[in-house]
Amino acid sequence: MKIKVLTTFPEMIRPVVSQSILGRAMENGLISIEAIDIRPYAENKHHNTDDYPFGGGAGMVMMAQPIVSAFREAQGEDFKGKRIYMSPKGQTLTQKKAEELAKEPELIFLCGHYEGVDQRAIDLCIDEELSIGDYVLTGGEMAALVVIDAVARLIPGVLGSEESPVDESFSSGLLEYPQYTRPRSFEGMEVPEVLLSGNHALINKWRREESIRITYERRPEMLSGIELNKKERAFLDALIREKEEGDNNHADD
Amino acid sequence: MKIKVLTTFPEMIRPVVSQSILGRAMENGLISIEAIDIRPYAENKHHNTDDYPFGGGAGMVMMAQPIVSAFREAQGEDFKGKRIYMSPKGQTLTQKKAEELAKEPELIFLCGHYEGVDQRAIDLCIDEELSIGDYVLTGGEMAALVVIDAVARLIPGVLGSEESPVDESFSSGLLEYPQYTRPRSFEGMEVPEVLLSGNHALINKWRREESIRITYERRPEMLSGIELNKKERAFLDALIREKEEGDNNHADD
Repeated sequence: MKIKVLTTFPEMIRPVVSQSILGRAMENGLISIEAIDIRPYAENKHHNTDDYPFGGGAGMVMMAQPIVSAFREAQGEDFKGKRIYMSPKGQTLTQKKAEELAKEPELIFLCGHYEGVDQRAIDLCIDEELSIGDYVLTGGEMAALVVIDAVARLIPGVLGSEESPVDESFSSGLLEYPQYTRPRSFEGMEVPEVLLSGNHALINKWRREESIRITYERRPEMLSGIELNKKERAFLDALIREKEEGDNNHADD
Repeated sequence: MKIKVLTTFPEMIRPVVSQSILGRAMENGLISIEAIDIRPYAENKHHNTDDYPFGGGAGMVMMAQPIVSAFREAQGEDFKGKRIYMSPKGQTLTQKKAEELAKEPELIFLCGHYEGVDQRAIDLCIDEELSIGDYVLTGGEMAALVVIDAVARLIPGVLGSEESPVDESFSSGLLEYPQYTRPRSFEGMEVPEVLLSGNHALINKWRREESIRITYERRPEMLSGIELNKKERAFLDALIREKEEGDNNHADD
C-alpha cells in the first residue's frame, strides 16, 4: 500500500512512522509512507499556505491552491485509491472502516490546521472526510497517524506473530480479558489460578467470561451485537442480576 | 502542566510534540512533555519489557515490574494528577473529557504494545483507562499523542489568536460551517456571495445554518442536545421535510 500525507508539518509524520511496527513494514516493502510538505506548492511569494477567512472570524484558513497542486502531483495520472481529509466533521473511524481502507491500493491524507481548509480544495480533491473521534485537535497530523496505524496493521505481513491481531478488543466484538505474564507473584499480587492450570478449556471459558464482564461493566451497548452460547448467556444474566441487586441495595441505603 | 509518557518507543513521542503548537507551548514554558523509556527500568539481564502470557495465546504481554518502577520514579513523592493507561478497553475520549484533563496539574500516560500490559501494573499504577475510539492501534503512543494534543490546546495561552478555539466543531455542539479564503474565484469555483457582503448578521445566520445543515446531514444525533432559536428551528424543520420528501420520491422510483 502506498500512503501519502499532505501536511504543513511533515516532521510530525516522518519520525513516528519510521518507528516500531510501521517502520519495520516500510523496511520490508509492505507499505510506503511519504510525508509531503504542502508549502513548496504555494505559488505566492512567501509560500504562504493560509489566509484570513472570507466573512471574518478568528483563525486562518488553508488556501485551496497549494493543496490542490500538491494533490495533483501526489495522485499522478491514474489514481485508484482514496483521498481523505482528516476533519472533526468527517465520518468517525471504526475498526470496520479501517478494514475497508486496508483494501485500498493507495491512500492520500490531507492534514488541516487552524480553522480548516478552503472548502473548494475539499470539493475538488477529497473522496472522504474522516474523524478519529469527537474531540478537537490542533491539526490533522496525529489523526492521520492514527488512521495509518489502524489500517497498516491490518495489511497481511505487517504484524509479526508476537503482535497477532486475534483476541483483541473490537475484533471479537468484546473488550479484551486481562492479561498476565511472569512472575506468578508480583508485590503480593498473584496471577489468577486458572491461567496456571494448563486446562485450555477452562482458560478459554475464564477469558471469555472476563471479556463479557468487562464489556458489560464498561461498554454494555457493545453486547447487543454479540452471539453468546447458553452458558455465556447465563453468565451475563447473573452479572445483570448482581448489578440490579447492588443498585437496589444502594437505593435502600 | 507536566506531562510524562511512559513508553518503550520514546522516539514516537519526542519529535512530534516538539513541532507546531505543542512545540511552541513547551518553548514558552506552558507545558512540559517528557517521553520516558520504560526499558531501562527492567531489572532483568537483557532489559526485556515483555514476556509470554500466562494461560497461553498469541502475542506478548508487557511485564509489571518495569512499568511499576518507571511509574514510581515518574510520579515522585506527592503526585496530584492522573495516571492514564491508553487502552481500547478505556473510557472513550470526548471533548468534555479533554476539558476535565486540562485542569489537572500533571498527567502520566502509559503506552502499551502487543497484547497489552500485565493487569497487576494497571491495578497498581493506573487511575483511568482511556481510549481514543473503537479501533485497534499497534500501540498506545499515537493515542497518547492525540490525548495530549486535545488537552494541551485547552490550556490558556497554548493557542495563539490565529488558532482560536471558538467556532469549532464540538465546542458549539454543531459541526463547523465551511470556510473560504482568497482568491474569490478559484478554478471557476466562487466563494458564497454572502461571505463577501460585509453584512455580519447575514454572515452569522448563513454560518449557523450551514452548521445545522452539515450536522443534520452527517451527525443528526448531535442535534438533540442543541438549543435552536425559532428561525433556526424552522430551518432545521425545512431540512427534515426536504429529506423526507426526497426519501419518498426515491421510494416511488
